[in-house]
Amino acid sequence: MARLVMKFGGTSVADLELIRRAARKIRAEVERGHEVAVVVSAMAGETDRLIKLIGDIASLHDAREYDSVVATGEQVSAALLAAALQELGVSARSWLGWQIPMHTDGVHGAARITRIETEEIERRFKEGQVAIIAGFQGLGPDNRVTTLGRGGSDTTAVAVAAALKAERCDIYTDVDGVYTADPAIVDAARKLDRITYEEMLELASLGAKVLQTRSVEMAMKYGVRLQVLSSFNDTPGTLVVDEDGIVEKQVVSGVTYTADEAKITLLRVADRPGVAALIFGPLADANVNVDMIVQNVSEDGKTTDLTFTVKRSDLERAIQLIEGAREEIGHHAVVPDRNVVKVSIVGVAMRSHAGVAQRMFRALAEKNINIQVISTSEIKVSVLIAAEYTELAVRALHSAFELDAA
Amino acid sequence: MARLVMKFGGTSVADLELIRRAARKIRAEVERGHEVAVVVSAMAGETDRLIKLIGDIASLHDAREYDSVVATGEQVSAALLAAALQELGVSARSWLGWQIPMHTDGVHGAARITRIETEEIERRFKEGQVAIIAGFQGLGPDNRVTTLGRGGSDTTAVAVAAALKAERCDIYTDVDGVYTADPAIVDAARKLDRITYEEMLELASLGAKVLQTRSVEMAMKYGVRLQVLSSFNDTPGTLVVDEDGIVEKQVVSGVTYTADEAKITLLRVADRPGVAALIFGPLADANVNVDMIVQNVSEDGKTTDLTFTVKRSDLERAIQLIEGAREEIGHHAVVPDRNVVKVSIVGVAMRSHAGVAQRMFRALAEKNINIQVISTSEIKVSVLIAAEYTELAVRALHSAFELDAA
Repeated sequence: MARLVMKFGGTSVADLELIRRAARKIRAEVERGHEVAVVVSAMAGETDRLIKLIGDIASLHDAREYDSVVATGEQVSAALLAAALQELGVSARSWLGWQIPMHTDGVHGAARITRIETEEIERRFKEGQVAIIAGFQGLGPDNRVTTLGRGGSDTTAVAVAAALKAERCDIYTDVDGVYTADPAIVDAARKLDRITYEEMLELASLGAKVLQTRSVEMAMKYGVRLQVLSSFNDTPGTLVVDEDGIVEKQVVSGVTYTADEAKITLLRVADRPGVAALIFGPLADANVNVDMIVQNVSEDGKTTDLTFTVKRSDLERAIQLIEGAREEIGHHAVVPDRNVVKVSIVGVAMRSHAGVAQRMFRALAEKNINIQVISTSEIKVSVLIAAEYTELAVRALHSAFELDAA
Repeated sequence: MARLVMKFGGTSVADLELIRRAARKIRAEVERGHEVAVVVSAMAGETDRLIKLIGDIASLHDAREYDSVVATGEQVSAALLAAALQELGVSARSWLGWQIPMHTDGVHGAARITRIETEEIERRFKEGQVAIIAGFQGLGPDNRVTTLGRGGSDTTAVAVAAALKAERCDIYTDVDGVYTADPAIVDAARKLDRITYEEMLELASLGAKVLQTRSVEMAMKYGVRLQVLSSFNDTPGTLVVDEDGIVEKQVVSGVTYTADEAKITLLRVADRPGVAALIFGPLADANVNVDMIVQNVSEDGKTTDLTFTVKRSDLERAIQLIEGAREEIGHHAVVPDRNVVKVSIVGVAMRSHAGVAQRMFRALAEKNINIQVISTSEIKVSVLIAAEYTELAVRALHSAFELDAA
C-alpha cells in the first residue's frame, strides 16, 4: 500500500467519457490498495472560455474577480470526477481550495501555495475515501479565491504530493511520456524511462510542453517522484527522479528546440565600458528578457557588432526601446531577424564528459548548418540557427548523440 | 439615502452587454446616494448546462457534488458584474455564499437560509462599495457549497434585504411587472402598480412565473417591500406590499391559469366511510399532490363518482397507485383527462365582497364554458375547464371583473 497523487490535465477530462475513463484509472489504483488524492484541471477549453468572458467585460479587470471566474472550471471538473467515481462504487469527494484549505499568498492570478492543511484528507484516507482536489486554485489571505497562473494544476499536484508525503505524483496527460525529441519531427525519437529533475527543467523551459517549469522545480526541492504518463493508454510513462535514480547515464538525454525566438543585431556599437548597460538596462526595466548574447571582436578598436535574442513577441518593443536610446548607445543600425530557432541538447552527464559541444558543432557543420549564437550551461548546449534548418538540425543531433531507437 | 437590494435574473445577465446594462442600473442607484447590495442569478442557460453535465455523469449523483457544480453559474456572473461595475468607476466586489457567509441548513439541492453575516458588507457600504452577491448558493454546516433549489436567487435577494433591513428589494426580470392577466392572451391586460403579498403568493403558486413562491412568503414574513420591474426599460414596476399599502382595492386583482393539470375520475366508488383515505393515502405517501377534489352525490346510496386533479407529470404514477389499490377502493373504472386547465381569479378584497364566485360562474356560462371542478380559498376562486376554452375563459373573466385597460 502506498500513497499516490494522480493529476489529470484538461485534455484528460475534456468530456464526460474521458472523465469516466479517468475515474476508472483512479479506481484501479484504489483497488491496488493505495491511498489516492487526485488533482484535476478544468475541462479542455473551459479556462480559455472563462478568461475570455472576464477579459471581454473589463479589459483592466480586478485580478480577484478574474480568479473567482476562472477557478470555476476546476470546481466543475472536480465535482464531476467525484460523482463519476461514486458511480463506480468508489468513495470520493471533491475539495475546493478554500475547503482544504490550500493557503496561498495574495498575488491574485499568479499566487504561490504557502501551506496545505491535509489533516481532514488524511483522516478520510483511513476511511477509504479518494480526495478529488480542484487544481490551480487556493485561498488567499483576503479570504478570496486565488489562482496559481496558467498550468498551475501541475504545481497543485506536486504541492499536494509533498504535503501528503506521497510515494509518487503521476501526471496524466495527452502524451505518454518525455521523449528524446519531438516525435512529430524525429521518427526515431524514443520515450525516456527516466529523466532527472535538472534535465526535465531544461526541457520544460526550452519548450517541451509536458510539465510546467514551476512544478518541476517544486518536485526537485521536495524530492517528489514525478511520473508523466498518458491517460489514453496503460503503458508506463517517464519517471522524473534525482540523479541517483538514473542507472545508465547517456551523455545527452534529449534534443529540443524553441521557435519563439528573435535575434537583434546592433551594428557598430561604440566599443567602450558601460555600453552593455546602456543597451540591456532599458530592456530589463521593461521586463524584456534577453536570452543569448554575443559580442564580436572589435576590428578597428572603436566599434563592435552586438547580437542578442529575445522572445519573438517582445521583438517590436525591444527595438523601440533601443532606438529610443540611440543617442546614448551610438549604434549605426538595428538588424532584426525573426527567422531563427534555438536548438538545444540536454543531459546531466555532460558535466563529466568533455567535447560534447564540439560534437554538436561538428554534427551541424556536416549538414552545412551555420551557427549564429551559442550559449551553454552545465547540462545543456544551445545554438541559434536559421529557422529553415530546424528539423534537419534536430534529426542530425538526435543521431549524432546515439538517441535513435534501434 | 436608502439601502436597496437589487436582484437580476438570468435573462437580465444573459450576455456581456446585458451585464453592462445591469451595471449601469446599479450605478444609477449608487449615484442617487443609496447603499446597494445586488443579488445575481447565473447567465441564462448556464444552470441548465451545468445540471445536464452532472446529470449525465451520474444519474443518481451526490447532491453535494451537484451543488458544487451548479453554484459555479452564479460565481461567474457575480464576478463579471463586479468587474463591469468597476469598469464604470463604481467600487464593487463579488461575494460567494461561503465568503459572506450565507449559512444554510444541510439539505443539499434545496437548502434553507438560516443566518446571514452582514457585518463586513455593511462596513463596506460605509466606504461606498457595492456588494455583488452570488444568488442561489450558501454554506452548509458541512462546510460545503449548498444551493437553494430552482429560482433560489429570488429567495437569496429577499433574505439579504431582510438581513440588511433594506428599504426595498427590486427584482429585475424580463417582464415589467405583474399583470392583471397574461398579456400574451389578453390584449387589454394592465400592469398592476401594487399587489398584496397574499395575492402575489396565489398568483405565484398558480403559475405566474414572475416570482418564486418561497421568496414571496419570506418577504411577507419579514415585511420586505418587493418591486418587480424590467431590466430592459426604465418604467416603474409592480410593488408587492401588505394590505395597508393598497389604497384602491379592486375585488379581483388578476386572472390566471395553469395548464399543468390532469383530472382523474373514479367511477362507482363504494360510498362508505374511510374510502377517501384509501384513495388519497397512497398518493400522499408517494408525494403526489392532490389539488381539487369533488365527490358527486350518491344516486343509489351505495356508490359514487369521485374526481380530483393532480399535476400532469404525476398522472401516470397516480393511476398506477390507484389501480394497485383497486381491491380496497372497489372502483369500477379510472377515467383520466389531460385536456384540462385551471383558471383562477385572485383578489384580497373578495373577503369582504359576496357574490364574486357567482359572478365568475355566470361569466363563464355566458360563453358556454362548462365548469368541471371548483375550489376556493379566502382570496381566490379556481375552476377546472376543458383546455380548449383557456383563452376564451381568461378574457371573459378579465372583462367581467372590469380589469380591461381603458
